[in-house]
Amino acid sequence: MPNSTTEVSVTVPLLPSLRHATNSSSQVAIVGSNVCPIESLDYEIAENDFFKQDWRARSKTQIFQYVFMKWLLCFFIGIIVSLIGFANNLAVENLAGVKFVITSNMMLVGRFSMGFFVFTVTNLVLTLFASVITAFVAPAAAGSGIPEVKAYLNGVDAPEIFSIRTLVVKIIGNISAVSASLLIGKAGPMVHTGACVASVLGQGGSKRYRLTWKWLRFFNNDRDRRDLVTCGSAAGIAASFRAPVGGVLFALEEMSSWWRSALLWRTFFSTAVVAVVLRALIDVCLSGKCGLFGKGGLIMFDVYSENASYHLGDVLSVLLLGVVGGILGSFYNFLLEKVLRAYNYIYEKGVAWKILLACAISISTSCLLFGLPFLASCQPCPAGALEECPTIGRSGNFKKYQCPPGHYNDLASLIFNTNDDAIKNLFSKNTDFEFHYLSILVFFVTCFFLSIFSYGIVAPAGLFVPVIVTGASYGRFVGMLLGSNSNLNHGLFAVLGAASFLGGSMRMTVSLCVILLELTNNLLLLPMMMVVLLISKTVADAFNANIYNLIMKIKGFPYLYSHAEPYMRQLIVGDVVSGPLQVFNGIEKIETIVHVLKTTNHNGFPVVDGPPLASAPVLYGLILRAHILTLLKKRVFLSTPVTFDSNTLAQFRADEFAKKGSGRADTIGDVELSEEELNMYLDLHPFTNASPYTVLETMSLAKALVVFREVGLRHLLVIPTISNRPPLVGILTRHDFMPEHILGLRPSLSRSRWKRLRIRLPFLS
Amino acid sequence: MPNSTTEVSVTVPLLPSLRHATNSSSQVAIVGSNVCPIESLDYEIAENDFFKQDWRARSKTQIFQYVFMKWLLCFFIGIIVSLIGFANNLAVENLAGVKFVITSNMMLVGRFSMGFFVFTVTNLVLTLFASVITAFVAPAAAGSGIPEVKAYLNGVDAPEIFSIRTLVVKIIGNISAVSASLLIGKAGPMVHTGACVASVLGQGGSKRYRLTWKWLRFFNNDRDRRDLVTCGSAAGIAASFRAPVGGVLFALEEMSSWWRSALLWRTFFSTAVVAVVLRALIDVCLSGKCGLFGKGGLIMFDVYSENASYHLGDVLSVLLLGVVGGILGSFYNFLLEKVLRAYNYIYEKGVAWKILLACAISISTSCLLFGLPFLASCQPCPAGALEECPTIGRSGNFKKYQCPPGHYNDLASLIFNTNDDAIKNLFSKNTDFEFHYLSILVFFVTCFFLSIFSYGIVAPAGLFVPVIVTGASYGRFVGMLLGSNSNLNHGLFAVLGAASFLGGSMRMTVSLCVILLELTNNLLLLPMMMVVLLISKTVADAFNANIYNLIMKIKGFPYLYSHAEPYMRQLIVGDVVSGPLQVFNGIEKIETIVHVLKTTNHNGFPVVDGPPLASAPVLYGLILRAHILTLLKKRVFLSTPVTFDSNTLAQFRADEFAKKGSGRADTIGDVELSEEELNMYLDLHPFTNASPYTVLETMSLAKALVVFREVGLRHLLVIPTISNRPPLVGILTRHDFMPEHILGLRPSLSRSRWKRLRIRLPFLS
Repeated sequence: MPNSTTEVSVTVPLLPSLRHATNSSSQVAIVGSNVCPIESLDYEIAENDFFKQDWRARSKTQIFQYVFMKWLLCFFIGIIVSLIGFANNLAVENLAGVKFVITSNMMLVGRFSMGFFVFTVTNLVLTLFASVITAFVAPAAAGSGIPEVKAYLNGVDAPEIFSIRTLVVKIIGNISAVSASLLIGKAGPMVHTGACVASVLGQGGSKRYRLTWKWLRFFNNDRDRRDLVTCGSAAGIAASFRAPVGGVLFALEEMSSWWRSALLWRTFFSTAVVAVVLRALIDVCLSGKCGLFGKGGLIMFDVYSENASYHLGDVLSVLLLGVVGGILGSFYNFLLEKVLRAYNYIYEKGVAWKILLACAISISTSCLLFGLPFLASCQPCPAGALEECPTIGRSGNFKKYQCPPGHYNDLASLIFNTNDDAIKNLFSKNTDFEFHYLSILVFFVTCFFLSIFSYGIVAPAGLFVPVIVTGASYGRFVGMLLGSNSNLNHGLFAVLGAASFLGGSMRMTVSLCVILLELTNNLLLLPMMMVVLLISKTVADAFNANIYNLIMKIKGFPYLYSHAEPYMRQLIVGDVVSGPLQVFNGIEKIETIVHVLKTTNHNGFPVVDGPPLASAPVLYGLILRAHILTLLKKRVFLSTPVTFDSNTLAQFRADEFAKKGSGRADTIGDVELSEEELNMYLDLHPFTNASPYTVLETMSLAKALVVFREVGLRHLLVIPTISNRPPLVGILTRHDFMPEHILGLRPSLSRSRWKRLRIRLPFLS
Repeated sequence: MPNSTTEVSVTVPLLPSLRHATNSSSQVAIVGSNVCPIESLDYEIAENDFFKQDWRARSKTQIFQYVFMKWLLCFFIGIIVSLIGFANNLAVENLAGVKFVITSNMMLVGRFSMGFFVFTVTNLVLTLFASVITAFVAPAAAGSGIPEVKAYLNGVDAPEIFSIRTLVVKIIGNISAVSASLLIGKAGPMVHTGACVASVLGQGGSKRYRLTWKWLRFFNNDRDRRDLVTCGSAAGIAASFRAPVGGVLFALEEMSSWWRSALLWRTFFSTAVVAVVLRALIDVCLSGKCGLFGKGGLIMFDVYSENASYHLGDVLSVLLLGVVGGILGSFYNFLLEKVLRAYNYIYEKGVAWKILLACAISISTSCLLFGLPFLASCQPCPAGALEECPTIGRSGNFKKYQCPPGHYNDLASLIFNTNDDAIKNLFSKNTDFEFHYLSILVFFVTCFFLSIFSYGIVAPAGLFVPVIVTGASYGRFVGMLLGSNSNLNHGLFAVLGAASFLGGSMRMTVSLCVILLELTNNLLLLPMMMVVLLISKTVADAFNANIYNLIMKIKGFPYLYSHAEPYMRQLIVGDVVSGPLQVFNGIEKIETIVHVLKTTNHNGFPVVDGPPLASAPVLYGLILRAHILTLLKKRVFLSTPVTFDSNTLAQFRADEFAKKGSGRADTIGDVELSEEELNMYLDLHPFTNASPYTVLETMSLAKALVVFREVGLRHLLVIPTISNRPPLVGILTRHDFMPEHILGLRPSLSRSRWKRLRIRLPFLS
């Protein structure tokens, strides 16, 4: 409920405004790359008489239709997301592949500078294309999109994040940016794409492009949309890593704020569809019909080895990997946060700067990728190599690059390659002597910093793959340092290194574990993977927060965490509730309603019946701004202050009150009423949610947060404890629980030892 | 809050009792095999002035101590549960192994009747031992324990379920019952064992056996105990199937009612410890130091095959498997429910009947296991068999049984074996021609019915393994029928059959999928496994509920489901709240308090300040019976009705108010007060939870259930909407949301079309 503007209370409210401290927390956030206004979502079921009537009238057929449609939507989400994921891989592999083949062929005949020119220009054009469409067509498509979707699932709505325009730019922009050899990933954009597909399907298409289906009207509410978006984000991860169970767990552990058992099942269904479709498409590609999209087919770094044996003695090296990985991961988060803040500062200067920065990053990347391999010395091909050496095409472990025949450039095999192939090379087994440790070190440092600087550019860019590639090179480097002191081969070290770096940066446990297992197809690694993830997460949590939470904070999303800050225990609800409170009578004059709607931007108004409707003021419920606007637009008014009769009510249809899609809500400016109409009345009772959630004003803030967050509320009414007072003290919204607001009201709390302790120790909860 | 007894309201309550309908739902349930009284758990944080003082006084050291101790407890849960799980396997394999070896040796020399006698008597003795210790020492240890733990995690406490006595009987009884060749499992008992270990550790040992540690006092509350029990149950599954990720997901999907991200992490830690310890112990056993506990080591049916190829064409057979598996699974649930109800009827007649029934089941099982293989014809050993044929020892695919040399009895390989070995044989690959289809059919029918009749006996008995073995034989049978119409080998069919039968009976999705993957170590099966589980669950849900929910219903646990029944939308809170309401004044006379405590069995009492403390009645909060009893026992009373000063408060210590372990609560009968003391006063304010959760009396019941369930409450205060009324209408407890209670008050609702629809379609939600 935004109430940041200073407004003048002109109407005569039934209740005096008890408190006048307006909420100071921000009502805007950075969505993608632009600053946009944000709103809360209505996850609470508005149980009013009118809807109850509608529910009772629903036939069995309609209920079956609803259930069937919901499953059908999950099915289509799975199908569409897997097709997009596959198309994305196909396009990237072919675009980047052609580029690498052409460049390699030029270098084979000694035309190095021509090769460099072609490589750099291709990359620049691709980057420019991605950043121009992102900046001008759909700024909301920039970045990974995971923070935006995570905030959406927490109840924060931003315009355009789920529009068709964003969807198209996200897909094309990501293909083009990844093909430009930037050190960015595609998993995050796939999550956003999945969520977008789900939301567009649930809304029944897009009104703007006249693609709507009437029979999807049941899903025009935030609750069903939230379920679908959860399925979509799970399908996104499932499609990018071919990890269906990992996708479900990722949605559960990282994305969603509320979870029901039924949702687990539905999400599982969507990812199962993804798994089956991808399996079928890969069958098609195995017959060689997919161009340069080779046998490997999507990321699937098969490191299975029958005899992956390890003993308790290896636990020490695993501990070391975990601890260092945790430190590196949190350092990564720290640097990324600083860089993103710097970028935001640059971006404020205008669109041209955004595109210039993207170009600069592209050119530097091209220079590094092309130039660094020249630093590495050429290695003679190993005698009994199972693969062709040196490789001339784009794939393979042994790139020829500038080397003489019979030799290969180990750094080029990693760096002058797509990220997927680099990971495959790092994870491969029986290659313990293939890479020089200096090459691995150079590769690690390059990836570490390049990915930090690349993430913030104005293009769809993910973080998963860069973190995996950086972590894998770190793991392999540790494996080399330990040498014969460990029984594990370097491919396993690379996998565990990737796990530790992921754990240190993203801070998930079960979902990362399952994603990595599905990625590497090696269940025997499980115990070590678990240990590494636990250690790196624990170590990193001592320093800073999860990368997505940091990004959400920079972007300014009012994310509601499930744990209460300790200082909230010292406050009661009455301490933070802000005013002024605007209240409607059960039968209200149109003029009053219009005036209140124009002068405030609250999104919910309490309805209190006073005399003559009741002997003493009675709290009837809460009415939403959107519902009032629908009533005003309908223009069914009463000339005298009486209640609606059933004939009048029969003029309304439930779908008129359906929630509009993101950023498409009506405004009071759209409603124009005559002088005569302004003097008429409206009976709000049938449209008022008569079951609002309430807390006592003496309730501790921490416990109010529990109910607000667990039930998923937008408005929480505060009522007095004493009986001879008016029936309502105020309304709590999401912003009233934000630390900035509370600490603004009570500056002394910010110096409390509790706060510092909590920030340092997120695992306290 | 039990209030079933008819009581006389003698005190003078501040508020009139608005409604006198007492709650009719039962306050007892069948725990294990006996009927016990049950209570609700206090998951809500009681925020009173006294505790707030205590929290503020806690030093940083104490906070670290708490966090450290919690992680340490999770660590110890992992260690202890994995050791118990390993010991369990070791004991069963050796006990059952010796039995089979002796019997086989006798049969080798033709002494069939002697073999039968030894087999039957050994089984009978083991069964008798298990049922006698269960019936006489710890009746709460009977059955799988999963329903009891699940109810506990939902907020229902039963005495003795987590006592040391139950723990010991559960472990020994399960070893003995499984060794007796009964068709029962060990996974369920392991879950109960894990939960028990966690609870005992959290309570700091057992007071009865003087095993307590003072420094565990922080964990003497229901919230921390709930977290630990969740970890314990996850560790139980992890230890029984060597499936750490599956254990976490099982606890999440099936066991827990509330879930936090922090809990996911902690649970993952416990199961990681289990995985590492088991890995180390198996390393020890591989060197042959574990007797008959062979190379297989725990259940781990390694069906990995490099070329597990399957195509979209196989989807049809998978669909068939899923549909039939779902129907079979729901039929299994249906029969099991009927048999358990019949058993309960028998058990009411006395303990002797319980033991007699166990003996009857044991003898019938022995007869079937020994006799049925004689029906099967002997098969000649295959020419190029990789394994020894016929096998003389107890393991192996080709049992000699009564056959001539060079022949084997295929039915004996399955039925005259431990369940684990039978599953291994069924899951094994390249054995498509080993079993005759009639043998598999006989085995399937035997398992199906025998497991239904065996589960209800008075001994620790699980359901997982019987369901897997039945499902695997069903899957293999389908594979044989399809023959060359499918590319899948019969071992894969057995795995998918087990999945479909599990899905049809237990109705989990993600957790079963992961458990089966970890069990079979074959990630390539994933897409088919997902499809099979989804289909069988969907089909089975159309007929009846999840097996554990059915058992909980038979046992009478007031389990609170997260979805509201549709008829709850038609009711408001005021319709169901039951009285009479007992209210205390902020400063109350001891006599009144004692009288109220003696004449009611409410567990929470609202505290309302009237004149002279306040001008009008003010709702101050809610005080728990347990806290009042502590106050009365402490005998710090006031001679005049004034508030406690800080010196008086300093006499109390926070740990005096700690929650006692299950079934060990104080009663008012323990407190004896003199006439003089009865005329004194007690200031309840500092000990009253001043932040109780509240709903308006006009709130719809469905939405009140949402807050009750999501926040995990024991008491929910109902307050009036109108301001000139007393500040409280009544209190809602768990029992007020039970369908029996609501439908008892409004019989017309039970005929609603909604109810029937909901029962038939659980996937509506």
